[in-house]
Amino acid sequence: MDKNINIVIDTVGGDNGAAVCVSGAVKGVNNNPGIKVYLVGHKKELEGFLMEQDYDKSQIEVIDATEDISLNEPPVKAVREKKDSSLVKGLTLLKEGKADAFISAGSTGAILAGGQFVVGRAKGVKRTPLAHLLPTSGEPSLLLDCGANVDVKPEVLVQFAEMGSIYMKEVCGVKNPRVAIANVGLEEEKGNAQVKAAYEVLKEKKTINFIGNIEARGIPYGKADVIVADGFVGNTIIKLYEGLSKMILKELKGAFLASFSSKLGAMLIKKSMKKTLLKFDASNKGGAPLLGLKGLVVKIHGNSKENEVISAIDQCVSFIKNDVSGKIIKGFEDSEEE
Amino acid sequence: MDKNINIVIDTVGGDNGAAVCVSGAVKGVNNNPGIKVYLVGHKKELEGFLMEQDYDKSQIEVIDATEDISLNEPPVKAVREKKDSSLVKGLTLLKEGKADAFISAGSTGAILAGGQFVVGRAKGVKRTPLAHLLPTSGEPSLLLDCGANVDVKPEVLVQFAEMGSIYMKEVCGVKNPRVAIANVGLEEEKGNAQVKAAYEVLKEKKTINFIGNIEARGIPYGKADVIVADGFVGNTIIKLYEGLSKMILKELKGAFLASFSSKLGAMLIKKSMKKTLLKFDASNKGGAPLLGLKGLVVKIHGNSKENEVISAIDQCVSFIKNDVSGKIIKGFEDSEEE
Repeated sequence: MDKNINIVIDTVGGDNGAAVCVSGAVKGVNNNPGIKVYLVGHKKELEGFLMEQDYDKSQIEVIDATEDISLNEPPVKAVREKKDSSLVKGLTLLKEGKADAFISAGSTGAILAGGQFVVGRAKGVKRTPLAHLLPTSGEPSLLLDCGANVDVKPEVLVQFAEMGSIYMKEVCGVKNPRVAIANVGLEEEKGNAQVKAAYEVLKEKKTINFIGNIEARGIPYGKADVIVADGFVGNTIIKLYEGLSKMILKELKGAFLASFSSKLGAMLIKKSMKKTLLKFDASNKGGAPLLGLKGLVVKIHGNSKENEVISAIDQCVSFIKNDVSGKIIKGFEDSEEE
Repeated sequence: MDKNINIVIDTVGGDNGAAVCVSGAVKGVNNNPGIKVYLVGHKKELEGFLMEQDYDKSQIEVIDATEDISLNEPPVKAVREKKDSSLVKGLTLLKEGKADAFISAGSTGAILAGGQFVVGRAKGVKRTPLAHLLPTSGEPSLLLDCGANVDVKPEVLVQFAEMGSIYMKEVCGVKNPRVAIANVGLEEEKGNAQVKAAYEVLKEKKTINFIGNIEARGIPYGKADVIVADGFVGNTIIKLYEGLSKMILKELKGAFLASFSSKLGAMLIKKSMKKTLLKFDASNKGGAPLLGLKGLVVKIHGNSKENEVISAIDQCVSFIKNDVSGKIIKGFEDSEEE
């Protein structure tokens, strides 16, 4: 079933090293018999980790990369100069059609730059947004753009809405996803020039289920399946989400340790609390795809563990099986003909 | 000591009615012997509530207002047409110099419009930002603009930084407040055109302690005392702050009720948890001032109770005693001479 799906994993640059990429890849290929994974990185190290693992040898291939891109390097320069880095080598496989998807836990800036310069935008796509699934009190919502494009025009926001809608339908199985613009108020006349112009176009689009504006206070309650924003606002939302939930949980933990009775109480609530906290754990939600490129590029958290690598592989398989890229491009070609 | 400080309270439009304004005003004047409060609203109702209270009669005066502005009215139209509303009457007292400060729990839109049209901007002020104190794991941080101006130029952001710095110094007693721009990355070259241009100017300013950029994930940890943003980004931050903390606490509450042992556990941690949750309670942090007007306008939460009214009165007293308006205006006159 999963025949001919080739996925590249960049094993350099994640906080937890190559070991989690290797064990994640092994579980990923064991779950998906037809796929093949290319592990790009330090060959000897990767082969060492693989020796301990049990898997079909035809499903994993190691590709050596001798240069490293660090988190502090200027991304564009790094991508242009380090041709033998795992990032550039892996993305080149995608560009040449030898692979369908690329997963990396490395520097976001370098992944964004590499996506643009090595892989390139698909026909008809104006800008490529980074999309993140946000945990909510209901099902996760897709937020895009999370920081790839800080200054965008209204027509770019409209494309983000279309790409996000296709992604939620095809990869996450949401029927008729509710699409909203992140705005300062619910009313149509609210917002800056950019979102007002995007609203005008979106309300006439018949291909998506546009429900209007969403205020940031409604996002945690899952009031939309797809939330459209420019990269500046989207990045602010995703980072505040991360920082604020971590801070609140840390403060509560401090409160639990304040006295003997609260420590005892904390033991009793541990189990049911854990279930709640798991909802806010990004690791079982896969990575953040950079949509609209000629191939699928997925950024996973810098501190990803084996689980997130496995989820990202599954996510890539759904994406490719359902031909999400093809549907995105087709959507834009159709809309140009209107 | 507090002689000659006159504060107007708009008693119409808050979710909890006029009663909380009256009891808050009475406690406020009892705490601040030299001040006078004008209660503007439905005269008979206000007089009825006042009869039950114990206070120095010379300190509170009731002013009748016969028209109401609802939350759903277009703000500019409401302010222009309803001359006998508590909002317009109260702001007129401020404009005419009969009062120094104005507090309201009514429609934010109407308060912003009224501030502009009735009171007017102070000399040298380009735009008037709405400033909110955000709870953090340390001391509260001031975020401005929280939504009064969605499209702003870099020089406006620079003024926000200066106003915020003066406010934190004079009203909140923070020595040498750390001022930062809300941005998508910490590095100077990050961001959209607007914040990059503001950064250039702010790093040369000797009157404020500019510490560079802050990412949204650093905000909950109190990494800056003053956070500068355009009204679109600031509004997104304040509303996500509110929505996400409420949602997480609601989910945890649900978890606590999940089983008998978790219910028992919740009882044991209640006391120390309450202390933590109080930190996230905005009611003891006063209201949100609209800075840069010819008089002080303070917006308090729609659901404000007595406590928030009292805090807002104290906040106004500090603001006026320390001549924050005068210092803001002086700062801009000086900077124009440079």
